[in-house]
Amino acid sequence: MSKQRQLKLGAMVHGVGHGWGEWRHPQAQPNASVNFGFYQQQAHLAEAAKFDFVFIADSLHIHAKSSPHYLNRFEPLTILSALAATTHNIGLVATVTVSYTEPFQVARQFASLDHISGGRAGWNVVTSWLSGTADNFGKTEHPPHAVRYRIAKEHVNVVKGLWDSWEDDAFAYDKQSGEFFTPGKLHALEHKGEFFSVKGPLNISRSQQGQPVIFQAGTSEAGRNFASENSDAIFVSPEGFDDARAYYQDLKKRAADFGRDPLQLSILPGIRPIVGRDEAEVQSRYQQAVELVTIEDAIVALGRPFNDHDFSQYPLDEPFPELGDLGSNSQKGGSDRIKQLAKDEGLSLREVALRFSRPRRDFVGTPEQVADALQKWFEQGAADGFIINSLLPDGLQYFTELVVPVLQQRGLFRDEYSGSTLRDNFGLPVPANRHAQTTEVREESEALA
Amino acid sequence: MSKQRQLKLGAMVHGVGHGWGEWRHPQAQPNASVNFGFYQQQAHLAEAAKFDFVFIADSLHIHAKSSPHYLNRFEPLTILSALAATTHNIGLVATVTVSYTEPFQVARQFASLDHISGGRAGWNVVTSWLSGTADNFGKTEHPPHAVRYRIAKEHVNVVKGLWDSWEDDAFAYDKQSGEFFTPGKLHALEHKGEFFSVKGPLNISRSQQGQPVIFQAGTSEAGRNFASENSDAIFVSPEGFDDARAYYQDLKKRAADFGRDPLQLSILPGIRPIVGRDEAEVQSRYQQAVELVTIEDAIVALGRPFNDHDFSQYPLDEPFPELGDLGSNSQKGGSDRIKQLAKDEGLSLREVALRFSRPRRDFVGTPEQVADALQKWFEQGAADGFIINSLLPDGLQYFTELVVPVLQQRGLFRDEYSGSTLRDNFGLPVPANRHAQTTEVREESEALA
Repeated sequence: MSKQRQLKLGAMVHGVGHGWGEWRHPQAQPNASVNFGFYQQQAHLAEAAKFDFVFIADSLHIHAKSSPHYLNRFEPLTILSALAATTHNIGLVATVTVSYTEPFQVARQFASLDHISGGRAGWNVVTSWLSGTADNFGKTEHPPHAVRYRIAKEHVNVVKGLWDSWEDDAFAYDKQSGEFFTPGKLHALEHKGEFFSVKGPLNISRSQQGQPVIFQAGTSEAGRNFASENSDAIFVSPEGFDDARAYYQDLKKRAADFGRDPLQLSILPGIRPIVGRDEAEVQSRYQQAVELVTIEDAIVALGRPFNDHDFSQYPLDEPFPELGDLGSNSQKGGSDRIKQLAKDEGLSLREVALRFSRPRRDFVGTPEQVADALQKWFEQGAADGFIINSLLPDGLQYFTELVVPVLQQRGLFRDEYSGSTLRDNFGLPVPANRHAQTTEVREESEALA
Repeated sequence: MSKQRQLKLGAMVHGVGHGWGEWRHPQAQPNASVNFGFYQQQAHLAEAAKFDFVFIADSLHIHAKSSPHYLNRFEPLTILSALAATTHNIGLVATVTVSYTEPFQVARQFASLDHISGGRAGWNVVTSWLSGTADNFGKTEHPPHAVRYRIAKEHVNVVKGLWDSWEDDAFAYDKQSGEFFTPGKLHALEHKGEFFSVKGPLNISRSQQGQPVIFQAGTSEAGRNFASENSDAIFVSPEGFDDARAYYQDLKKRAADFGRDPLQLSILPGIRPIVGRDEAEVQSRYQQAVELVTIEDAIVALGRPFNDHDFSQYPLDEPFPELGDLGSNSQKGGSDRIKQLAKDEGLSLREVALRFSRPRRDFVGTPEQVADALQKWFEQGAADGFIINSLLPDGLQYFTELVVPVLQQRGLFRDEYSGSTLRDNFGLPVPANRHAQTTEVREESEALA
């Protein structure tokens, strides 16, 4: 078996696509975002191609101008629980916010998904950037950006603590004596912090992977620190190779500064590959993807990292407007990057909007060309793997059938699963339960008692 | 096709059983409560027997003395989402509290389960009676009993309102014009009430059954009013036929007083049948079930409706202790009933504890005897159907293989499903969306505009 370092691959599953116009493609199923058959088909494609995981994005606030793919879609934990029943090896990563959830419930639902799936759950930790979310959860205000990251850190710590409520060997199952579990191996958390007060213990044990895998997507200063300290995998949407490489190097360094092994943190750019069997098909498919992006949709999409700011009020072909600190309390990293790019390159509003909505050229090509680009990013320090975001209804199928075999031939991607959990797919060890003592320590402390 | 009124049947699925000692049965799988294979097998048994639904009970607070079946188990919405993927007709009823959840999240997860399952979701609305739950959710106090029912009423109204965010014909899917939905058919709720403030709209549409079916289990005065006004089905645990009949008549009358058709409210006693092929097997199986109940476990179980009160402090063979208003702020209906029974019959603590933990005799017998008892309750105004709570590991299998065919022969239970949603199983209509106008009304209002 090859010991070569290999790519990690995830499939973002979105139903009607991840952009404003993808549902308009002639082959798109416009109800796909609430169509279980579609999600099953996508998950089965990804699993047949030996992907590491499927990934479900999320948000909690819509209005009449929201993108079709936000308007009407499955909730991540329920759809992934359903997919757990008909898949066997692929990881199941759900986006769940820390700003509008209770750690006890989050810990419990992920642990339940983890048991149902035999240890394949992952949690993509987000802080929610749309201030309108507060109105759906009875809050008078959306927490400021810096506070959201303090909430995130405490929330994740509480969830991880709850996940360790039961030691792995806690269950005695002694039918004769009636001892169901060993009393000293059940632990209340007794957490009292700035935002949460949670006693515990959790009413569900650890699965065979110990704890679900943590994903994050921080790009702001606070976000980068949070992600590099607390996550196992990072989802990022870079502006091309140089941007990806700079981010990769920065996050790996931060992880090391936090005392972590940088190899245990995977940086996974989200990309939108467009693959064709030959140049003609590549161009035809690229053109189809471009035509799905109208300038009207691109202007609305651009508003999202700025808390759904209305950009239609500005002239399209004049320089990108001066926005002050707009965006800094919503998706700070993303909105800062847009402002910087517009300034650096002296772009008009139209150019900025299309730049962010139109497919990029980085991963457009024949199977070999796309594999070359993936390999370059992987080998030259810009990625440990990728999250595949399909732009066309058959995009995942094209990628898995055409590009994956090339990656496998090059030894860059697995031919078969080597384990059954998401941690197995990622090569991550099962984390020790914080309460577990080695036999020696336990005997020592008993001798002292 | 027979137009005869037929029984409704549900299966309570519990993993290691619903009592303290059932995991000790020689054939019990002690890890069954987190074993997806076990849940699938139980759901498939129930579906093969054409049951209306499976039912998952729940609670949110454990401690070292909790029953094994509370300690380590699946969360209801995740396990039912998984079961949705491998079943086709059976309803999926999840217990979810109103006291420690956000209506937006509850509405969304049930709607998601409802879409995944093709319209088979049901919500068993509970208010949570264990005060320790507050400690897991950062609350300084558990809300008092009366407040919990006010919370319940508002919570359920908000959830139902969110479920109607999208009219059924809201989605235009016009790929040419780019109209994904008709703007006037998406509705924000704009709710501001005593406990919740929720703007909406919900980011998921209605399923083919319109809204999930509402279950409840109120037995106190407030609980009975809430259940008879707001639910489609009521789960109750009566003390024998007379008690069941009195409850049934009372709830049907209350429903009528609320202006409802009592036929649209199903009263479903939870029962623990023990079936054997002949008298010898009946006695052997009954004896097995009795032996699983120790007096120690029965004493702990008795404490639960009294907020996990410690009854081991009282002498076992003296009259049932005087408890004042203990229990009135936890499971009020259940604890009141226990106190009343002890007083009316002059029972000792031991007698009361065993009465509530040992299997009752009402549904113990051969297939024909059990069918006779079910038929009596059904035809003499004590039940519209039953929730089957199996005491032995193979209890559901015995019931479905031996009793269901007798019920079918008598025309009391369906041979085949006649529809695909839980509402179809129950004969309940799809509720009209509150915002939907008839064509005439819409045209009129447009003419006026």
